[in-house]
Amino acid sequence: MNIRITKSEKLKTKPDQATLKFGRTFTDHMFIMDYCEEKGWYDPKIVPYGPIPLDPSTNVLHYGQGIFEGLKAYKTKDGRVLLFRPDKNAQRLNASCERMCIPEMKEEDILEAIKALVSLEKDWIPEKEGTSLYIRPFVIASDPFLGVHASHTYMFMIILSPVGAYYPTGINPIKIYVEDKYVRAVKGGMGTSKTMGNYAASLYAQQKAEEKGFVQVLWLDGIERKYIEEVGAMNVFFKINGTVITPELNGSILPGITRMSVIELLKSKNIPVEERRISVDELIEASEKGQLEECFGAGTAAVISPVGELMYKDHSYIINNNQTGDISRMLYDTLTGIQFGNIKDEFGWTVEV
Amino acid sequence: MNIRITKSEKLKTKPDQATLKFGRTFTDHMFIMDYCEEKGWYDPKIVPYGPIPLDPSTNVLHYGQGIFEGLKAYKTKDGRVLLFRPDKNAQRLNASCERMCIPEMKEEDILEAIKALVSLEKDWIPEKEGTSLYIRPFVIASDPFLGVHASHTYMFMIILSPVGAYYPTGINPIKIYVEDKYVRAVKGGMGTSKTMGNYAASLYAQQKAEEKGFVQVLWLDGIERKYIEEVGAMNVFFKINGTVITPELNGSILPGITRMSVIELLKSKNIPVEERRISVDELIEASEKGQLEECFGAGTAAVISPVGELMYKDHSYIINNNQTGDISRMLYDTLTGIQFGNIKDEFGWTVEV
Repeated sequence: MNIRITKSEKLKTKPDQATLKFGRTFTDHMFIMDYCEEKGWYDPKIVPYGPIPLDPSTNVLHYGQGIFEGLKAYKTKDGRVLLFRPDKNAQRLNASCERMCIPEMKEEDILEAIKALVSLEKDWIPEKEGTSLYIRPFVIASDPFLGVHASHTYMFMIILSPVGAYYPTGINPIKIYVEDKYVRAVKGGMGTSKTMGNYAASLYAQQKAEEKGFVQVLWLDGIERKYIEEVGAMNVFFKINGTVITPELNGSILPGITRMSVIELLKSKNIPVEERRISVDELIEASEKGQLEECFGAGTAAVISPVGELMYKDHSYIINNNQTGDISRMLYDTLTGIQFGNIKDEFGWTVEV
Repeated sequence: MNIRITKSEKLKTKPDQATLKFGRTFTDHMFIMDYCEEKGWYDPKIVPYGPIPLDPSTNVLHYGQGIFEGLKAYKTKDGRVLLFRPDKNAQRLNASCERMCIPEMKEEDILEAIKALVSLEKDWIPEKEGTSLYIRPFVIASDPFLGVHASHTYMFMIILSPVGAYYPTGINPIKIYVEDKYVRAVKGGMGTSKTMGNYAASLYAQQKAEEKGFVQVLWLDGIERKYIEEVGAMNVFFKINGTVITPELNGSILPGITRMSVIELLKSKNIPVEERRISVDELIEASEKGQLEECFGAGTAAVISPVGELMYKDHSYIINNNQTGDISRMLYDTLTGIQFGNIKDEFGWTVEV
């Protein structure tokens, strides 16, 4: 791939690393590649970061044909730049494209584009403990006319944002509301894809949960409102009586890359881990027997997010005395250790830029 | 509402009315109103139609927080301009906003904006038989940063497109594929809202159906894959043994304005009409008994779209010898007659601009 680079004439002032938030500041450049039926994906380029002019009739603004990915670049203590399993993001990006009728790209082109942009913007990767450079690849349908059909033209873009430690004061358990009225996705829908509509679908329940004092919702399945799906925008794990359990990929759950890594890591340490259907009733029974030992979310942004309390039908269930459990802590320390290059990567997960 | 108007300095050449397509050409101006938390909805304006610059991190491009409406302006033979039940569109726009965590607007402001823009662009309303001016109000989340939360800022826009007769050669029955793998929406999801994700969710099954030679899919419910929901992006009606039946609004079906009008029209003519759950098995049984007398879709774009063939699990069921039925024809003629001002509007549905 021959990436044309147009450098920004005036570089921005980089933000204070001590007060970085998530997704608020963007770097000096962005990657863009276009698609049309005659040329396929063409004209890959890096240009100064800035607004993109969209016709008001642009397909994605009406019919939501768009998908995205999220990963991070980490700066190690010895100054190297690491990506965490970016090949998995490239594969999932293509899987999302396929489901959403968007033409796929070559995986190596996606990776090359990410590396080229991160490399150009390497001075933007913050170095303070726990900070990183968030990478957001996304594809939008760009046909400038109205009609419920797959678009004939698309834009693939990558933007970068330096982000702070997700837990500036260390990881602390969050309170979760078990949502039994609204659902995120259902089998036969688009739940397995990282497509915009799934996130829009989560907003209402999320807002109601926040109003009740909860940080996230625990989603149940759309058919029986009984089986656990995800927590907020993360995959979810439970430790019950010594075994770590996560909902199996059933056609409505997003196949998380942190989820995959947690499973592989647990297996490598001979900690029992199961991917299977798990009902909210089983959770409650385990909690009442004192066997619900840990619960945590797993995703790119927070890595591991311990859950200290579940609220279901007006009953509160406290997990591990509202403390971060040993498995949650170990997973967080190991994954972030590998990501930041502080622990030897025995899995071959990190890729140096 | 005080709408600021900036007129375009150079007007476009209007397209040939004989070859108008759907949603391809847009008029000289568009309406825009912004929202921020401090000011609420503010600065309503009509400006020259043109691209809107969006930051690549704009919320709607990643998390799909956006909704839309669709209605038409019709030119009568005596030169008046009619809208069809625009109050219902304004109400539904607000209902979609509420579900998608978007701040609602005053209904009268929505109507005033539509009327002001249509009035300014009245020369764009085509006059040829069956043509009209399609009106697309829509709202997009405009926060320029990444984060799965309801946006703090929004844009409400209206664009206009002269459109041709949906059936240039008159209405003809279409072939429909009954989709039993993919679903459009499920109870607890966003199916009742006119939000972008629902349309994205339909693309894959629609594309597969087209590849098999069908025009649209018939959606089944997401829970039992048994009850009829919608046809393509329209509501659906069946005439079985003299009674017209349409799926009841169950929490996953879009409450169509054409649907509502069809029901009211049938009631006014003492034709039996039922809103209730109807299974695909009931349809097939009726078809086998020779009692499935008609089937049609109902929506703004096509008004009434007769269905001549249903394909379910590799069996084809022909309806009314693949001919447009009497009820379908009567509804199409009456609704379009009222919309174009050729039939007296006894319902008070039309609003003159």
